[in-house]
This record gives sequence, C-alpha cells and structure tokens, in this order.
Amino acid sequence: MTTERGGYAKGDRRRADIVAAAFDAFAGNGFRHASMVQIAAACGVSRAGLAHHFPSKETLLAAVLAERDRQNDARFFAGADPSRDGFDYLARLVRAVEHNATQRGIVSLFAVLSTEASDPEHPAHATFAARYDGLRRDLRDAFGELDRRGLLRDTVAVAGLESEVIALIDGLQVQWLLDERSVDMGERLRHRLGEIVRVPLP
Amino acid sequence: MTTERGGYAKGDRRRADIVAAAFDAFAGNGFRHASMVQIAAACGVSRAGLAHHFPSKETLLAAVLAERDRQNDARFFAGADPSRDGFDYLARLVRAVEHNATQRGIVSLFAVLSTEASDPEHPAHATFAARYDGLRRDLRDAFGELDRRGLLRDTVAVAGLESEVIALIDGLQVQWLLDERSVDMGERLRHRLGEIVRVPLP
Repeated sequence: MTTERGGYAKGDRRRADIVAAAFDAFAGNGFRHASMVQIAAACGVSRAGLAHHFPSKETLLAAVLAERDRQNDARFFAGADPSRDGFDYLARLVRAVEHNATQRGIVSLFAVLSTEASDPEHPAHATFAARYDGLRRDLRDAFGELDRRGLLRDTVAVAGLESEVIALIDGLQVQWLLDERSVDMGERLRHRLGEIVRVPLP
Repeated sequence: MTTERGGYAKGDRRRADIVAAAFDAFAGNGFRHASMVQIAAACGVSRAGLAHHFPSKETLLAAVLAERDRQNDARFFAGADPSRDGFDYLARLVRAVEHNATQRGIVSLFAVLSTEASDPEHPAHATFAARYDGLRRDLRDAFGELDRRGLLRDTVAVAGLESEVIALIDGLQVQWLLDERSVDMGERLRHRLGEIVRVPLP
C-alpha cells in the first residue's frame, strides 16, 4: 500500500510538472505553436511518459486551464462569497481583470478556447458551458446582494446584468489581444461597474 | 484582349463560386471540420483548381470573411454614415446583431478567428486589427454625433464608450455560441443602448 501511495504521489508530481511546463509553453508561444516535444523536454519526461499522462495536446490544455482557474481562485477569490458580499466580489473581479493585463499568453489561450469550445463536439464544450453558468450565477448573486443593500444606482435593471458584465470582460480581451494600446481592460470594467454601483470600488 | 478579359471574368466567377461553397461549408460545419476536398466537390472544381485560387484553407477563410463583411455592409450598412446620423447607425447595428442570431456558423467563424488572429504572426492579424479600428471609429462617430444632438443621457461618458459597446457585442457572442438559451444578443444590446441613448431605437 505504501508503494502504491508512493507511486500515485510520484505520478501526481510528474503530472504537476508537466502541467507547469505546458502552462509556460502555452502562455509564451500560444497553444498552436507550443510543441509536445518541447514541453516533454522542459520537464524532463520522455515523449512516451508525456503521452501516458496526456494523450493529446488538447487534454494537456484542459489541465492547464483547470490549473489556471485554480490559481486565479486561490489568488483572487479565496473566501469570496458573492451572495454574502457582492461589493467584495466585484472588487476581486476587477483585480483579476487587471492582473489579466499582465498575462497575455494565458488570456489568449482562454479567449481562443472559449470560442472554439462553442462547438458542442469540442472536448472542452461542457467545461466551458459550465464555467459560464457559474460565472453568471456568481455575478447574479453579487448584483442581487448589492441590490438588497441599496447599493445599485436607481437606473440599473438587474435582470441580465450578469451576462452584460461577463460579455464586457470577454469582449475587451478580444480588442486588447489584437492591440494592447487600444483599450485598458481594468479601467473600462471599473468605469462600467461605477455606473452600476453607487460606491466606488477600491 | 477579349480572350484575356474573358479569362479574367471566368476566373472571377470560378473564384466567387468557390467562396460561396466555402461560406456554406464553414458556416455549416465550422472551419476546422470543413474539408477542402468537399468544398472543391461542392462547386465542381478539381482539388488542383481550388489550390490555384486558394493555396490554403486559411486564404479561403480570409476570402469568406471579406465576402461576409461585404454582404453585411450591403444588407445593413449601405448608405450609413455614423458621423452624420448616429441614431440610424445604431439602429442598423442592432439589426445586424439580431440577424447574427440566425447565422450561428458564421458568427462562430468570426469569433474563433478574431481571437486566433490576435497572434501578430497570424495571416489575418492586420485585417482584424484594422477591422476593429474601423468599428471603433464608426461607433465613436455615432456617439459623438448623438452627443452633439443632445440625444445621449446625462449620465453617459462618451470617452471609451465605443470599445465598451463592441466588447459587449463580441462577448455576448461567446456566451450565445456556448449556449444559445443563455442570452438574447439583440435584446441585451438594445437594452444597453437604451441606457445610453434617450430615444428608443426602432
């Protein structure tokens, strides 16, 4: 049993090393230009060893995106509860978007994959659909909580606001990725939220 | 000379046939699943004949997107001048977005390509960057004209509004492509523009 546990632990570490190397490769060169051979070399695994853990570049990509979500959650959303403190949640969201402006490679990955995954047969389709459902739920909870506290401006209609704000974040990325000077993503989001919420976000 | 002209005209027709077949194939199956062999067969050209006009699927895609822009311009924006009538321009924009909700394949193509093209080495990068510059200019002109006519609500800050509205349109497509029931793109855009412009859009 100890051996078996040791085996699992070693496999998990190896897997984590591969994901970390792929994260760097995808973020640096983009998904298309990154090569499985280079990723294997970067973490000292054979091509067969890599294939054992990740049979395709797509499965590796899914693991990278899950890892990025985990890191972002830990960094920006640990302990957040939009249904209990919507203001705090929005402040965290703005900080996460501001941080994105320093993460071009990974933002690009997410942008490309979230559009490619719209194909119902894409391996990441269900993951992305669920991801957006969760995002909409969190933002709906946040705006609902702010509404109950009387912190939304009088002109604001809450229904559908969650879809609009998520769309704004995604759409700003498209313009920013095409031309970084064209738009300041954090500033734009902050401005729009300032039209919605009475109190300025930190 | 007549022969030469005839030759050009025939080549142009053949080219247009190929683009039309590719348009249907890409819009129906998506860019990745569409095959050059099927496209050639659909318009009665040999594989070599297709390669003569379009050496790669990417060059064919660029032609399809240009054709779609041409069709959309003719259908929704013929005679429009955002700097002379911003209200008319926004009304046309809403109609174009409403029409998009019937064009899943082509909307998906644009969404995937506009994110892929963020890579400066992508063959469509310059085209897409210029496309967004043009879109921002048109919307800036439209909002500027509405502002001069006193048709914007008092709370509206015009600076950067063009980036926000384009981002909203792009971002709504991401959610709609992933789950068509999740959002009504036309309704959401109309709602947001109704918060910006005093007079309801037709």
